[in-house]
Amino acid sequence: MSEIKRIGVMTGGGDCPGLNAVIRAVTKTAIMKYGLEVVGIKHGYRGLFLGEKEFVNLTLDNTDQILAEGGTILFSSNKDNLFDYTFEDETGVHHGDYSHVGVENLKKAGIDALVVIGGDGTLTSGRDFSRLGIKVIGVPKTIDNDLAATDTTFGFDTAVAAATDAMDRLKTTARSHSRIICVEAMGRYAGFLALATGIAGAADAILLPEIEFDLDKVAETLKKNRDNGKEWALVVVAEGAKEKGGKVIVSKVVEDSPDPIRLGGVAAYVAEELEKRVGLESRATVLGHVQRGGSPTANDRILSTRYGSAAVELLMEGKFGNMVILKGNEMSYESLENVIGNNKGVEVDGELVKVAKAMGVSFGD
Amino acid sequence: MSEIKRIGVMTGGGDCPGLNAVIRAVTKTAIMKYGLEVVGIKHGYRGLFLGEKEFVNLTLDNTDQILAEGGTILFSSNKDNLFDYTFEDETGVHHGDYSHVGVENLKKAGIDALVVIGGDGTLTSGRDFSRLGIKVIGVPKTIDNDLAATDTTFGFDTAVAAATDAMDRLKTTARSHSRIICVEAMGRYAGFLALATGIAGAADAILLPEIEFDLDKVAETLKKNRDNGKEWALVVVAEGAKEKGGKVIVSKVVEDSPDPIRLGGVAAYVAEELEKRVGLESRATVLGHVQRGGSPTANDRILSTRYGSAAVELLMEGKFGNMVILKGNEMSYESLENVIGNNKGVEVDGELVKVAKAMGVSFGD
Amino acid sequence: MSEIKRIGVMTGGGDCPGLNAVIRAVTKTAIMKYGLEVVGIKHGYRGLFLGEKEFVNLTLDNTDQILAEGGTILFSSNKDNLFDYTFEDETGVHHGDYSHVGVENLKKAGIDALVVIGGDGTLTSGRDFSRLGIKVIGVPKTIDNDLAATDTTFGFDTAVAAATDAMDRLKTTARSHSRIICVEAMGRYAGFLALATGIAGAADAILLPEIEFDLDKVAETLKKNRDNGKEWALVVVAEGAKEKGGKVIVSKVVEDSPDPIRLGGVAAYVAEELEKRVGLESRATVLGHVQRGGSPTANDRILSTRYGSAAVELLMEGKFGNMVILKGNEMSYESLENVIGNNKGVEVDGELVKVAKAMGVSFGD
Amino acid sequence: MSEIKRIGVMTGGGDCPGLNAVIRAVTKTAIMKYGLEVVGIKHGYRGLFLGEKEFVNLTLDNTDQILAEGGTILFSSNKDNLFDYTFEDETGVHHGDYSHVGVENLKKAGIDALVVIGGDGTLTSGRDFSRLGIKVIGVPKTIDNDLAATDTTFGFDTAVAAATDAMDRLKTTARSHSRIICVEAMGRYAGFLALATGIAGAADAILLPEIEFDLDKVAETLKKNRDNGKEWALVVVAEGAKEKGGKVIVSKVVEDSPDPIRLGGVAAYVAEELEKRVGLESRATVLGHVQRGGSPTANDRILSTRYGSAAVELLMEGKFGNMVILKGNEMSYESLENVIGNNKGVEVDGELVKVAKAMGVSFGD
Repeated sequence: MSEIKRIGVMTGGGDCPGLNAVIRAVTKTAIMKYGLEVVGIKHGYRGLFLGEKEFVNLTLDNTDQILAEGGTILFSSNKDNLFDYTFEDETGVHHGDYSHVGVENLKKAGIDALVVIGGDGTLTSGRDFSRLGIKVIGVPKTIDNDLAATDTTFGFDTAVAAATDAMDRLKTTARSHSRIICVEAMGRYAGFLALATGIAGAADAILLPEIEFDLDKVAETLKKNRDNGKEWALVVVAEGAKEKGGKVIVSKVVEDSPDPIRLGGVAAYVAEELEKRVGLESRATVLGHVQRGGSPTANDRILSTRYGSAAVELLMEGKFGNMVILKGNEMSYESLENVIGNNKGVEVDGELVKVAKAMGVSFGD
Repeated sequence: MSEIKRIGVMTGGGDCPGLNAVIRAVTKTAIMKYGLEVVGIKHGYRGLFLGEKEFVNLTLDNTDQILAEGGTILFSSNKDNLFDYTFEDETGVHHGDYSHVGVENLKKAGIDALVVIGGDGTLTSGRDFSRLGIKVIGVPKTIDNDLAATDTTFGFDTAVAAATDAMDRLKTTARSHSRIICVEAMGRYAGFLALATGIAGAADAILLPEIEFDLDKVAETLKKNRDNGKEWALVVVAEGAKEKGGKVIVSKVVEDSPDPIRLGGVAAYVAEELEKRVGLESRATVLGHVQRGGSPTANDRILSTRYGSAAVELLMEGKFGNMVILKGNEMSYESLENVIGNNKGVEVDGELVKVAKAMGVSFGD
Repeated sequence: MSEIKRIGVMTGGGDCPGLNAVIRAVTKTAIMKYGLEVVGIKHGYRGLFLGEKEFVNLTLDNTDQILAEGGTILFSSNKDNLFDYTFEDETGVHHGDYSHVGVENLKKAGIDALVVIGGDGTLTSGRDFSRLGIKVIGVPKTIDNDLAATDTTFGFDTAVAAATDAMDRLKTTARSHSRIICVEAMGRYAGFLALATGIAGAADAILLPEIEFDLDKVAETLKKNRDNGKEWALVVVAEGAKEKGGKVIVSKVVEDSPDPIRLGGVAAYVAEELEKRVGLESRATVLGHVQRGGSPTANDRILSTRYGSAAVELLMEGKFGNMVILKGNEMSYESLENVIGNNKGVEVDGELVKVAKAMGVSFGD
Repeated sequence: MSEIKRIGVMTGGGDCPGLNAVIRAVTKTAIMKYGLEVVGIKHGYRGLFLGEKEFVNLTLDNTDQILAEGGTILFSSNKDNLFDYTFEDETGVHHGDYSHVGVENLKKAGIDALVVIGGDGTLTSGRDFSRLGIKVIGVPKTIDNDLAATDTTFGFDTAVAAATDAMDRLKTTARSHSRIICVEAMGRYAGFLALATGIAGAADAILLPEIEFDLDKVAETLKKNRDNGKEWALVVVAEGAKEKGGKVIVSKVVEDSPDPIRLGGVAAYVAEELEKRVGLESRATVLGHVQRGGSPTANDRILSTRYGSAAVELLMEGKFGNMVILKGNEMSYESLENVIGNNKGVEVDGELVKVAKAMGVSFGD
């Protein structure tokens, strides 16, 4: 059967609450159940390229207390792809396919198999190393929860909780001052986070990338509410929300953009337009990185632990080249060959959208 | 089609974060989508017996802001069963089947259908009113998450979050003082809450009602950890955890109990025994009602909203006599006739138990 | 002695956690200790102008549970000054001194004295009504804690706590990605909030309105830290922080501003400049209204309660025309005539600045 | 002037949020401002006795991120007093004055001065080492805030915040079920924590060690509230609260106590008695160690930092044998000779008690 004695773990891409919980579950399961050794590879693929000095032994001791910590103790790196890599040394700048360096470094360190935790880019490289014969298991990481293959990803619950906490705080300001507050939530391509935040935060309107919005329709809802005595509103706007037939809205300051219809983001645009149409003072707040950080919720800690544990089980069952997924309430797996680039968006006619609409929440459509 | 114009809502049994979110979703969906009127019946079946003075109109205005509030704006009552009811008036104490009073009061108030939110007792009466021809939809409420018919109930996530927050706080004390801290979590018959808290709170041992514990085995794990440098421990003990071959442990002060082997609860007993066996100072903490209260998590707000929304949809589809359930990620329903008394416990060989054991967590077996 | 039977309370200006706690303490103390009646005047001076329909009886019942709520149950209004008032009715737009309308409305409602809770503008009007013979007590409200007359104002602790919570979340992102994150905190003229947040949130640099900054100096500190192994940083920037010899930095999008050197705020500017100088990827986050809202901290609830209680005591002692203040640990008072426009800033050589500098925090000077 | 090159730091006694923040401020200030070396002595005086193997270098790197962590990275020990010390080695049990071993270990390690953070016991030994000529600065630690010499101690704010958070959670349960919930807060001899929690948590009654209570009086208040429509109550009971003329109430299970009038603590007793007298169902909750742990509040982080910073400044000014104190808003110092055993209690007629009474809170007197 399996000849795995020593496994490597790495994290890549944007950080996400629960990464440390996955690392911990991988380490503890590998050591306690299978007697393996575990090596943490720092800074993702860049660390794999640099080799030994970026490798650290993971033990029960140095992983036991990281469950509740945000971020990743292994650090991360963005966009490093050894199959198309650029680096600089004393002899100049080099560019090319340096995946063989990664393979050699694994060999030198006696690492028999790799758990790769990351998003699309990271997992694509994981698949490519798998094709080269490396025993790879992927663990998906996306705070946007937009991976088609898996029902829920860790970090999402924490991001929703952080954004909902902000909604609770903003509510009292909105109400005391009879204001519309437009809250920009993460989500350039998928609106799951904005949708969940909107429902949990009692939003009056939710604007998603998946449903082009008409601000007259949103204004109509807010005016009706005002006539019924609610002289304030909370509106959640996903970063990637788009106006019906409108130009692309620039979600951050881009000075040299040829024609940004609005500087300051989509929430600022929506706030300004709603102020004109509804006649209530409006403000925009961009939640930003606050959604990504912090200690994972209890729920995310458990989910991350399940992902990490399942990764080791897949390795020991010899199911290489697969990614751990959650289907319904069950952990399962899917080939890395099938999952890359396979994203999902909020179903325009899905349950949560219908639930919110039935309660009178406007989606601007 | 349906002739429903005016619906009643009530809550019964112990409180649970998310009750208000259900009430809100029922009210908003009924009004905004179906143009119904909604009547809140205060104090559960007692209010139904007392009639009009306990009935309050629920509106968009008085329910909009209750989403984030713990408890229930409709209050609750325990153990009131109109089919076997005792009450006192100026003419003396009366006892008997007073369900007809409830039926009449519904009629008088023009209430065509009833959403009953509660645990086993509350839903049993709901079923019995349904048998009398009342249009009833049940919404399950159990903070223990131990209802066989549904995968997850609202309130559970909040309880786990509160208990995990306590674990995080206790950890620093345990570590600074090289102590074993035994945390008594809710769960007389089912260990879901203790299990989830143990995993999310990084417990070294978890003692559940479903797995009789042997403290020598627990001590063995803690001693091994100590030898590896972890000179402290967190142990989660469900209220209903039982010792292998042991007497029943009394979970609160019962002075006149014939033979309580221990006053002060099972956690106090476990703490004292582990102190003897492991040789580290030990303490017990009983989380108590803190787990039940407080603002629901974002996750529970969404789940509660889905339950409330689904209840109204079932009513409008004429699916009376059913209880809303969650299966996988889908809302569904099941006949009240089938669900009563049908509880589940933690599967001794289920995924979460296996995940925890693989990481070295002791269950005392 | 005093012939006070019935008092009015109002809130004006931007909202601030603790306003409801003040209202509650005023109401409970007035009723329970002195048997007074209490009238809440909604929407500040606008409500005073509109009279009866904006007046609401405050009771033990409707104030008991507001202690933990953010915002103000009496709503607020900005910039309404009856001594220089503009309003519109069916006969057109009117402008002038309408303070007599306020005085008459108080008389009509039988209100003998007024507790006015607000910032500079609100208290200035309070002083002016006092000059007209109204029995007024002021309660200062400034989330910036920049009132010279009083040591600490309520709301400040909650704002610092919210900002510090954000710092904790951002830390894990900064660390995992080797980034500089610049956090823009409230404070256009005074840096108390930024200073406290910087110390409590373990900032590496703190930029205040009171100390003009030199980004080369800040970069020097961050580079030294990086050389010592800390490859990331948190920088707190007050909205009103100014560059040494630099142009004014525009703290929000002002498209038609003649010469905004930077759109997107001072934190965005600082982030971009530090990225260039330090060579670490940088990001900016604007905390915004999240700092103002939410449930007050325990500390602020107590402080607000003391302010409210003291206001009633001053009224009953006949000390009209004064504002409640906190001096050291004691509640005291100061004439409204002396306090208006009397603001303080962070002492450049004060204890907290020195404490932070001694630990290596850069202030850019 | 001072010839201090290398300083030691230690923590003793029960843990308290903010200890790590003090350690961090001591370390950073010593290194960054004065170029000193800093040695952490683990496990308090026991570590001082054991010497080198318990000594760890404290650096910018290993202290930078501990600000937000509860507990103490240096661990603690209770009741270890080298002037009257018992230990066991292979030659048997030894007892006597072993302070000379501590002095020698300091000398061997080249430690010129000592910052001792702890409660009465720890500081008494600190004073005694000072008398032996060691350069000692004390930093007071008491979560009860009952030290006469200083106005406020760190950790207290966090404990109040944790207890208040529990009150907020319990409120919704109490209200939904028309119950009296009695919350046992820390405080055997001083009621500061119970008093602050009671005010911040909107308690209806607060029972303190300093004011003997009469439950008839408490019941009277709760009945009056009930008659006014508030059919539930929160009562805060300090561990050391005493009944007027009553027996001592045992605050935890003491089976072999000769005459414990009540097992289960004072809150359980109060709950049972109030249930009888008021006629509302009652429950008791013991907050326990949850109050001690967890991340310090922003406020406590700042206060701890000030204490730690001031300790180093005193050392460098040669002010040995003193303890850091806070007077009003100023850091200052007081001789260790004067502060030991000098505790304070809540003033029966102090401002906070009067404020609470004026609002109708019962103290049972």
